[in-house]
Amino acid sequence: MNYIFTNILGTFVLDEKNTIVDSITFKSIEEYKHKETAEAKLQQKHNASPLPKEKLLQALLLFKDAKYYQDFYTKNLELTKAGLKNAVNEDNLIMQAIANINELDKIANTMSKRLREWYSLYFPELSEEIEDHEKYVELVLEQERTQESFGADLSEFDLEEMKLLAGRIISIYALRKQHELYLEKIMTKYCPNLLELAGATIAARLIELGKGLKHLALLPASTVQLLGAEKALFRHLKTGSRSPKYGVIINHPLIQKAPRDKRGKAARMLADKLSLCARLDFFKGEFKALDYRIELEGKLQ
Amino acid sequence: MNYIFTNILGTFVLDEKNTIVDSITFKSIEEYKHKETAEAKLQQKHNASPLPKEKLLQALLLFKDAKYYQDFYTKNLELTKAGLKNAVNEDNLIMQAIANINELDKIANTMSKRLREWYSLYFPELSEEIEDHEKYVELVLEQERTQESFGADLSEFDLEEMKLLAGRIISIYALRKQHELYLEKIMTKYCPNLLELAGATIAARLIELGKGLKHLALLPASTVQLLGAEKALFRHLKTGSRSPKYGVIINHPLIQKAPRDKRGKAARMLADKLSLCARLDFFKGEFKALDYRIELEGKLQ
Repeated sequence: MNYIFTNILGTFVLDEKNTIVDSITFKSIEEYKHKETAEAKLQQKHNASPLPKEKLLQALLLFKDAKYYQDFYTKNLELTKAGLKNAVNEDNLIMQAIANINELDKIANTMSKRLREWYSLYFPELSEEIEDHEKYVELVLEQERTQESFGADLSEFDLEEMKLLAGRIISIYALRKQHELYLEKIMTKYCPNLLELAGATIAARLIELGKGLKHLALLPASTVQLLGAEKALFRHLKTGSRSPKYGVIINHPLIQKAPRDKRGKAARMLADKLSLCARLDFFKGEFKALDYRIELEGKLQ
Repeated sequence: MNYIFTNILGTFVLDEKNTIVDSITFKSIEEYKHKETAEAKLQQKHNASPLPKEKLLQALLLFKDAKYYQDFYTKNLELTKAGLKNAVNEDNLIMQAIANINELDKIANTMSKRLREWYSLYFPELSEEIEDHEKYVELVLEQERTQESFGADLSEFDLEEMKLLAGRIISIYALRKQHELYLEKIMTKYCPNLLELAGATIAARLIELGKGLKHLALLPASTVQLLGAEKALFRHLKTGSRSPKYGVIINHPLIQKAPRDKRGKAARMLADKLSLCARLDFFKGEFKALDYRIELEGKLQ
């Protein structure tokens, strides 16, 4: 009776005495991945059966020989490498990009506040007048100071320094927008339903908070509704404060447009559809998000 | 007997009955600032003496008339404006620039960490190898990935996004360096001694923490030594932990080069000289910082 035994080095035919009588060695990891081919070949040739469990230890001991070490080492390295390479998918890219978007938002905020303080030595009225940071930064670069300003008469040499800062802030805002376009492009292929219904930023945040599209697709809709509200949720559980009604989806236009007392309901309905979208996307289903959106818009009016 | 009374509107000659017999009105705030000229003129002409205190209220009541209101309003506004304009000095510019340097340091740090995480999907070995953030960011832009890398084979489309981030980080580092040059230029005129002995960054931090050069010049050297170590100092006072030996001056080369057990002494000697420098600079004294530096270098060897 002959037995078939396969490891990363190849497929081996062992006889009753545990001697190798025939073998096909794998030249690459690719061949190992399609080991069934080699196994079928040798099985036919020797009329061999799969190795029974009680003989496994014996077979393994065969390969304790030092002559196999080098081969095991390189093949294992290759296998690990391939595994690592394949472990990186769209989820990782999306999570990095959205994490950076969040950080860039904070950074632009810090820098804008600094610019406001600094430039207000020269033109305090502008900061009073313009609330929006991005608009403010643009005006620092474009607009002349009004004659009646109470600010100090600083030299071009001093102003130049503030304008350099303003320029950097603009480029941070631009990078943030570029990242959004990038996310949209990835998601058009990877999760078109989620992208259509949630928009790039919220969809990416959901994937980030759900720890990947697969995991997100498996979450109940009620959890999707609260993703990003973990802090408020735990506070609720601990102190009995009001339970949160929505996490990151609060920024969705459908929730924002809803009257305040209808937002909880809107969030639930939206989360239901988002959850369906995630499932459609993960299981490569049809594109239904547009229908969902129209349905939601109708119901929420 | 005639009396001279001056307010923001002009200089007035009042007789015993509190009637205005003559006046010179100020056409601008500049004339008010040189009111002595007008006062001297009228004093000579009318042989008038300064208004005694007991007649002040009477004189003030004269100007309660509504016809003066508009004039008071515009002149006061002008005065406030001039006051505000003059309230901004080098201290403010230095404090804003150094505050921004500190923030940019944190920002570059955050962004570099993000880039490391993101780019490591593609080339994890580079982050292992290069510890310095700035060097790392440069290499992301310049160096090709090694063939043996365990990272995933990402497309140019994905890598481009990371390289954009790297480019922004480089420009943040560049702005930080530019701010340092700017500080040096301001300080060369404003506080050359402090600049020479402390270097731009530490000098600016001392001015920031000392709330301006004037205030810094008036602080005892022992306080200068601990500026920036307030947290550790209060912890020491509260919990009896070891008292701090130095604040921001710890980054000074003279302290850094000193052996660990001599650092306290070095800090004290350096703070003494820095305190002298601040005083020389504030009171527009000579340039002695170079001598101080040589003296300290000799003593600390």
